Parts: sequence; C-alpha cells; structure tokens
Amino acid sequence: MLSRGVLHLSRVSQKTINKQQLRWFKVNSRVTSHDEYGSRSQEGSHDTSGSLLSTSAALVGSSLLTYWIVKKLKNDSATVYAKAASSDQQDISKAHTELRKDLPVYSMDQVGEHNSPKTGIWVTYGIGVYDITSFVPKHPGSDKVMLAAGSAIDPFWHIFQQHNTKEVLTLLETFRIGNLREDDVISTQDQDNPWAAEPKRHAILKPTAQRPFNAEPPASILVDAFLTPNEFFYVRNHLPVPEVDIKEYELEIDVELSDKTKSKKLKYDDLRKLPKHKVVATIMCGGNRRGEMMEIKPIKGLSWGPSAVGNAEWAGPRLSDVLKAMGVVSDETSHVHFEGLDVDPTSTPYAASIPLSKAMDPRGDVILAYEMNGEPLSRDHGYPVRVIVPGVVGSRNVKWVGRIVVSKEESGSHWQQNDYKSFSPSTDWDTVDFKSAPAIQYMPVTSAICSPANGDQLKADNGFITVKGYAWSGGGQEVIRVDLTADGGNTWIVADLDQVEKGTGRGRHWSWSLWTAKIPAKPGQKLEIWSRAVDDNYNSQPETFKNIWNLRGVVGNAYSRIKVEVK
Amino acid sequence: MLSRGVLHLSRVSQKTINKQQLRWFKVNSRVTSHDEYGSRSQEGSHDTSGSLLSTSAALVGSSLLTYWIVKKLKNDSATVYAKAASSDQQDISKAHTELRKDLPVYSMDQVGEHNSPKTGIWVTYGIGVYDITSFVPKHPGSDKVMLAAGSAIDPFWHIFQQHNTKEVLTLLETFRIGNLREDDVISTQDQDNPWAAEPKRHAILKPTAQRPFNAEPPASILVDAFLTPNEFFYVRNHLPVPEVDIKEYELEIDVELSDKTKSKKLKYDDLRKLPKHKVVATIMCGGNRRGEMMEIKPIKGLSWGPSAVGNAEWAGPRLSDVLKAMGVVSDETSHVHFEGLDVDPTSTPYAASIPLSKAMDPRGDVILAYEMNGEPLSRDHGYPVRVIVPGVVGSRNVKWVGRIVVSKEESGSHWQQNDYKSFSPSTDWDTVDFKSAPAIQYMPVTSAICSPANGDQLKADNGFITVKGYAWSGGGQEVIRVDLTADGGNTWIVADLDQVEKGTGRGRHWSWSLWTAKIPAKPGQKLEIWSRAVDDNYNSQPETFKNIWNLRGVVGNAYSRIKVEVK
Repeated sequence: MLSRGVLHLSRVSQKTINKQQLRWFKVNSRVTSHDEYGSRSQEGSHDTSGSLLSTSAALVGSSLLTYWIVKKLKNDSATVYAKAASSDQQDISKAHTELRKDLPVYSMDQVGEHNSPKTGIWVTYGIGVYDITSFVPKHPGSDKVMLAAGSAIDPFWHIFQQHNTKEVLTLLETFRIGNLREDDVISTQDQDNPWAAEPKRHAILKPTAQRPFNAEPPASILVDAFLTPNEFFYVRNHLPVPEVDIKEYELEIDVELSDKTKSKKLKYDDLRKLPKHKVVATIMCGGNRRGEMMEIKPIKGLSWGPSAVGNAEWAGPRLSDVLKAMGVVSDETSHVHFEGLDVDPTSTPYAASIPLSKAMDPRGDVILAYEMNGEPLSRDHGYPVRVIVPGVVGSRNVKWVGRIVVSKEESGSHWQQNDYKSFSPSTDWDTVDFKSAPAIQYMPVTSAICSPANGDQLKADNGFITVKGYAWSGGGQEVIRVDLTADGGNTWIVADLDQVEKGTGRGRHWSWSLWTAKIPAKPGQKLEIWSRAVDDNYNSQPETFKNIWNLRGVVGNAYSRIKVEVK
Repeated sequence: MLSRGVLHLSRVSQKTINKQQLRWFKVNSRVTSHDEYGSRSQEGSHDTSGSLLSTSAALVGSSLLTYWIVKKLKNDSATVYAKAASSDQQDISKAHTELRKDLPVYSMDQVGEHNSPKTGIWVTYGIGVYDITSFVPKHPGSDKVMLAAGSAIDPFWHIFQQHNTKEVLTLLETFRIGNLREDDVISTQDQDNPWAAEPKRHAILKPTAQRPFNAEPPASILVDAFLTPNEFFYVRNHLPVPEVDIKEYELEIDVELSDKTKSKKLKYDDLRKLPKHKVVATIMCGGNRRGEMMEIKPIKGLSWGPSAVGNAEWAGPRLSDVLKAMGVVSDETSHVHFEGLDVDPTSTPYAASIPLSKAMDPRGDVILAYEMNGEPLSRDHGYPVRVIVPGVVGSRNVKWVGRIVVSKEESGSHWQQNDYKSFSPSTDWDTVDFKSAPAIQYMPVTSAICSPANGDQLKADNGFITVKGYAWSGGGQEVIRVDLTADGGNTWIVADLDQVEKGTGRGRHWSWSLWTAKIPAKPGQKLEIWSRAVDDNYNSQPETFKNIWNLRGVVGNAYSRIKVEVK
C-alpha cells in the first residue's frame, strides 16, 4: 500500500504537502457502514426524486463511474438481481466487510499487479477483492476509474459517498473474486477521516451535498443585500476543505512558456505587501439553477436552486502584477492554471485554467484575493488565498490556491476538460465528446426571481404584488433591463434596478443587479410570473430550459418562472 | 435663404466642406413631382404591406416627424379627409406646387421669423407656406422637426422621401396658410440634386430604400463565401454618399479630454504610412432581420431581411496607434466620436461614438480602414476611409470618416442617442425614454438560415435536405455551436461549422461562421426548421421575436425559422 502511496505522491504537481494530503495517504482503506454514510447522505441531499440517475453520481469525478454502474445495472438487471437474491437477502451494505469463505484470499501486492486491461483490473473495497475488468473499457470516464486500478476504492468512496447505495453495492458484489489478506486491511481512526476537519457552517446554508460540502442559502435572503454576507455565500467544494497553516503557506508560481521554467514562491505576507486591488464581483456556480433544468429531464449533478451565486467585494494583489514582475507578456494562446490545496485520494489537486489574456488584462481584474467583504477569507471560501476571475464561472475562481502555472496548454484537469462544458440538448452520455466544446469561462446573462417563492400564496397590496430577484451577466456586461410578464409575454413590466454597481466601465461590470417589480394582482388570481434580463450587449435569456437542457446541467439561464396564488 | 444657409453652416462641426455639403446649400428649395419620387420610392421598397406605419418614416431622422403625421391623421382623419375631399379631388402630390389664390403671399424672410413655438412655427414646401405650430410640441422628435422651423422642408424631404405619400401630403395641406413669394422659390437643376452622384450598385443588391440607399443581397449568396465579395456586401447609408477628393481628404482628430484641445490632421497618405493592421470582421446592421420582427407587430424602419450583414478583411492603421501618438491614455468613461462626411441638409454629419476603452484596447482591433478585401474601399463602403469597430453594431463603423473627437461625453448625435437602442416589448412611442437605454455597441449572438429560403419546395437527397446559414456573436465571442431542430425542439442536430476563422484569441473572434446541417426529410413532409447559435460565453438566441420585439426593431436575434416542403 505504501508503494502505491508513493506512486500517487509522484502525481502531485504541487510541491507543498498539506495536512489534507497527509490524511489521504493515511486513509488507505476504511470500512464504512451504510448507517454512517448512507443516512447522512440522505439528510444532506435536496434530491427527493428517488431516481438513481439523479441521486447517484452527483459529484464530479465519480459521475462517469457511477453512470456506468447504473447503465450496467439496467442492462444486466435480471442477472444482478438474481445473484443478489441468491445471497440470502444479505445486507448488501455490509457485504464488503464480510469474509466470503467460498473465495480465495489475496494480498494487496497481488491486487496491485492487476492494474491494467492486460493484467485485469482489480480493486478492493473493505475486505472484498473485485475484478472490474469488464466494467472499465470503452467508457469515456475510464481514466477516473483507472486511478483506483490495483488499489482500494475506499478513499475514493469516502469522497464520493453516493456510491453507498444498494444498487451500486449490489453490482459491485457481482464482481467479487476474493478476500483481502487481513494484514492489508488498515482500519483508520476518526481523526484520519478527511472530513473530520470540515469547518462549521451557518445553518442557513441548505446543503445539496454534505461531502464534499455544497450548499446555498434560501433565495429570498439573496435580495436583502447587494454584498452577500460571507456566512450566507453559497459554498461549492469539490473535495474536503484543506487545513492550511498560514505560516507555512506558499504560493508557487511557474512560468512554463519557454524551455526554461521561471519559478517563484510567495508567502502569505509577500502577497499582502503587493498593491491591494478591490473588485466587487459576483461568483456563480456553473450548475446554478440545475434543479429547474432537471425538471425537463434527469441530470447527473447537484440539484442547485437559484442561490448558487453571491456578490462580494474581494481584495488582494492583481495577478497581472505578479505575472508581469516575472516577465510574463500576454498572448492569445496561453493559459494560467490554478491548483488548489484541496486534493483527491490520489493527491491530485482541484485545478482549472483561464486564458492568459484574461489574466493579464488590467481591465480583467483577476486578483489573488485574501479578503472577502473586508474580512480574511473563511476556510470554505478559500482561506488563505483564492483566485477571483470576475465574470467567469465559479469553478475557475480556484480556492486555497497553492500553485499557479503559466502554460501553453489549457489545464488538463477533469474539471477543465470533462466537466463545466455544455452541449446540444440531444447530446447524451453515449454521444458526448468533451473535446468538442470549450470550457465555460464567461457566463451568459441570467436573472432569477428570489421572492416570492414558487408556489407561494400571498396578498396583493393596493392591487400589486412585489417581486424581487437578481440579474447578472458574465464577461463584464452590465444588466441594463429586467422585464417581467405575468401573462405569457403579452405585456411586460420593466423592473426597477434598485441595487446596482455604478461607475465601472463598459465591459467591466462584474456585479449583479438586484431588482424589484410590482405586478398587478387581484385576489383569487393564479399568476405565472417570468423574469428575463437583458445585458448591454443586448443578449437576453433563452425562454425555456427545454431548449438549453444539457447533460451536465450547466449554464442554465432560461427565463425564471414562478407560480403564485393571490389571496 | 442664404442667411439660413450660413446659419446652417455654423452648425457644421467638421471643418472640411465637401461637394456634398455645397450641394445641400444650393438645394434650398426644390419642387418635386409625385411621379418622379413616389414611383421611384415604390420600386425601391421591399415593403408591400401598404400600411402607412410601415411604409412611412422608414428612415432615421424623419421617423418621429412622420409618426406624428400618422398619429394625427388617424386622430383627425374625419377632418382631414373632409378637407381633402373639399379641394375638388385635386392631385395632392402637386398641391404644394400650386398657387392658392385664397391665401396671402409671404417672403422667406417672413417665414424665417416664425421659427419657434413663441412666434409660431412655419415651414415652406414647394411654393406652399405652412403653419405647423400645433403639430410640433410635446413630441420627443420635435428637435428634428425644429431643424426645419422657419425654413424649407424640401431638402429634408429629398432625403426622407417617404414623406411623398398621399397621407402625409394631405395632412400638410391642412396646415397651409399661404404662398411663398415667387423670388424666394429657387428651382435647382438636376446636378444640384444631392442624389445625383450616388454610385452605381450591383443589381444583386435588393434595396429596402433607394434614397438613402439601403440594400442587401439575397441570403443564399451569403453562405457561398466566407469573405463577402465587396459588390455583394449590404449597404446601409443614412444620407447621400459624399463625393470625396482623395487629394483634399483630411481626417481631423481633436482630443478634448482637458481644457486644451489637442488637434491633428492626417491626409490620406499619412494614414497609408502608419503600420497597417488587418482584421477580418463581420459588420451587421442593428436592424438586420427587422422584417421578421415586423411580422409580430408593425415597426417604423427599413424592412431588412437576414442579409444586412457581411464579413470582410479590413485593413488600415490602428486607431489606438493614432491616438497614443497624440498622448491619449485610456479610461473608463470617455468616448471617441466619429463624424462622417455625409451630411444632412443642416450640414449635420452622420455621427456616432464608441467607448474610449474599446478604441484604445489593442485587443479591440479598431482600425481606420482604407481597404476592404484587399481593395480600396468603394464609395458605398466609406471611400476613402471608414472606421471598423469589430464586434460592434454597423452604425458605429462610421463610413467616410472626416473627424474624430475624443471626448468626455458620448456622441450627442441622433443615431447615438435616439436610435439604435432597444426597449421592452411593451415600450411604445408614447412611453419611450431613449435616455433609459444604452446605445447598442456589441451585438448579441445570432444565426440565420440562408438556404433554403422560407417557403421553398425542395427534394430530399438520400433522406436529407441541406440547410446552410451564418452565425455570429458580437463582442469577440466565437460561435461554438449551431443547433437545428425540425420538430419544435424535441431533437436537435448540431451543424458543421465549415467556414470559420481559426487562431484568434478568446474574446477576439470578430468573424462570422458559416455552417451546414443535414436535416432528415421524407417526400411529402412539411418541415419547420429552426436554427439557434451558442457562443463561447454560452449565450444563446432567444426563441421568439414576440418576446424581444422593440419599437426600433433592432438586435433581432431570435431563432431563425423557415418552413419548407419536401418533394
């Protein structure tokens, strides 16, 4: 096992090993119970559809593997359930913790020899040894599956706890070929649980997933403040929150544009000494409003409401100042990678990239932020330092940034290459070619009704009801108008933009706008109200989710629609 | 009359007087016949609706005046037609050329004394004197009407020939109060006609208006070439084409950012000596596809099809180089005005402005173009020099540029302030506040089906029909996908982007993309096919014109839809 740990270590592109990484190496194998994780996962999920397709595979990285399982389960359901039935209705959640006396015992070294299609692909889970060779090939997500080849899948499933479902575990048991030698099963203590050090969160944040933590506030709270209070700001983590000791924190910067890499390391204090730039910017998750899109057709992903968005004043040095000091000159084809200190069990950090031209543009306002609304970043928002890339999808605003690489290539990370991209509504997981679409950078124009909530009953006040929401356009475009209709588009009411940022230049408007509209309403009326924003490029929202549905459920910027009853 | 000419001259902000301006001063008054202009206007117009609202006021500047006339005609129709009937069914088109013996004679000096609401507002047309005081006030377009106050409207109507309709002339005669003194009626020869020197155009261009000349090629020709041949490139003129002597041509540049204006004059040869920058850019009229929007509800404006767009390689010095040499430094609030050498009868040039930040951005690629697809500009496209502002609506790509002003203020021109803006579908001419919307700069994402044409009958080839079109997004966004559907959005077919520009940086993609899609088709089928483009900000087109209808009929970027029958 240790040798695999070393192998994994060699994949770590960041030089600073933090506590989180050490934890992952300690957690080689861990026996979990269905009670502990299964029920927790239930509690934390917004998803009440009960559909395997939408409950499972909600998280990046595990999604393709799980998809495969779901698909195979469907295809082979007769076989699978026959086998499951023949195992005397055992508690499937414990199958991997139980010795199968009818099967041989293997050492971890023997398992480790089976790590390719040629040798067969084996994995362990609990004390079970599984041959998943037939399961891996041909699928586009096989690269992720292969990270566990010849090794324990337990640490992966610590992160991607959606695997702890009856269907997935039942399928896994059909691949069982043996038992792991007792000496190789390393039981870990709770302090080695990578989730043990997660920060406390404000109870107002409603989780769409607990591990990794993903949560949004109620929509109605968003419209109360132009700058979203830090505690109410949505959290979208892809991995456990790293614990960073600020005295040991170092930001490594590597400029790899020529044969000779230029490198530099900046401590936290070094960053504080650089000229401080403040920028008010909205950050939005690429999956914001996915829940509405899911109503059209199921999507694998977190079921976000309209509140995976917030607006804050961020402060820190300009990235362009840091890079210019290293002699970087902008060009049209290079990229800047950001690697987080949050890592997966293979020590692969969360990573993403943006075009160098955006990073170097003084009007692009990319900063290395250490402050959010005048306070040091909280752990959930990237303490001690995160990247703020105004106008650009949240996933490129990398938190806990540990390394920056200026490169001729785009980031090869899963999140850059095989996620956060959109496709035609008719593209499915069998036909998708992730290379065919560009990584989301700037976000399209959108708006959402935040108050009242869909389904509310409310009283009219002097013949009107008050509707509030936000509107935003990525790319620095300013929202110039929000239109509402309560009669299917026959008449439109222009909202008041009552909380907006003023004085930024054209194409440099990074903040959302908060708006209010009065809609004529009579007691007894059932109204369907739509909102639609227009930005200063005169782009506007598409009307329906149906026509922009995409298999990743991203950039969901259709009209916002609520139904209310007037009392 | 000469004194009025001098008065007008004082309004000319450009110092170079060209032949066109001299002509306007010569054309103080001109008696036209209905046969000469009315029929020509008919021939040149695409508009066959016969509706006054859509045939009249098609042109900027005259639109508000005419709107007033139409409105008044509707309100007062009983009175008006009663009066018209009482005039013995006279040929109304000649009424202003005929002496009314029942009315007094006035000199032009007397008419000139009535140039304000206080004194009464008189105008002359032919030999008629009219008191239009009751007609002018309160209307938002009264500033344009007032340019003719105390003067002859003939030269205005030489430009805005839509006034030569029975309805407008009938209304005008109701305001008749007298006859112009014979000595003050100056008949002009044909060579003084400001339209006499219009260039020859290729017969492929289908005019939506003859004077000023506005024309587009058939849509099917657009998709034949990535670079639109110069002769086929749509023409959108706001005024007569100026005649410019290249030896006398001078571009005046005034930087008015401080108390002390910095000025410079560049001859054509000076511009040729500056570093030459080439940029491939699509130019699109703000009113492109207005014809489709008009199907929802009438709009005052030229009824453009989908071909008020073209793509060309433009060449000339960078504007930023010229301005930097004058010490200009970019900021977020200033503007760059462009004044054309094309002028209206008051010698007011066509003018527009763009943000200084766009002009100074080296990635903005704004140039002073003297070449189009490797040839000197033709007269219709701005000979000798026009501005190319990539990604930005055609109307800011000022042709025949004679003066550039760097200013703290946006251009005050009619075209910047009171046109080329969009509003809510429920905003009408009674409620519109032009100050409430920003001038269109970058254009939104769009696509159009160019072949087959709507209504075509065509044969399927091996079970498919081939559909072709263009897609473009302003602001430098690249079109990443064009989706088509022939079943109302239930299934989508991704088009091949077969003619695209490669290798430009993200946010710096100024060219359109030409695409082809194969749509499954069976003999006997009636198909409705939609196209929809997505750009790399993942903005996409709104679905219907209904929800983006606006009173100026601009930025019409809804799904493109055609109906065809498969034989």
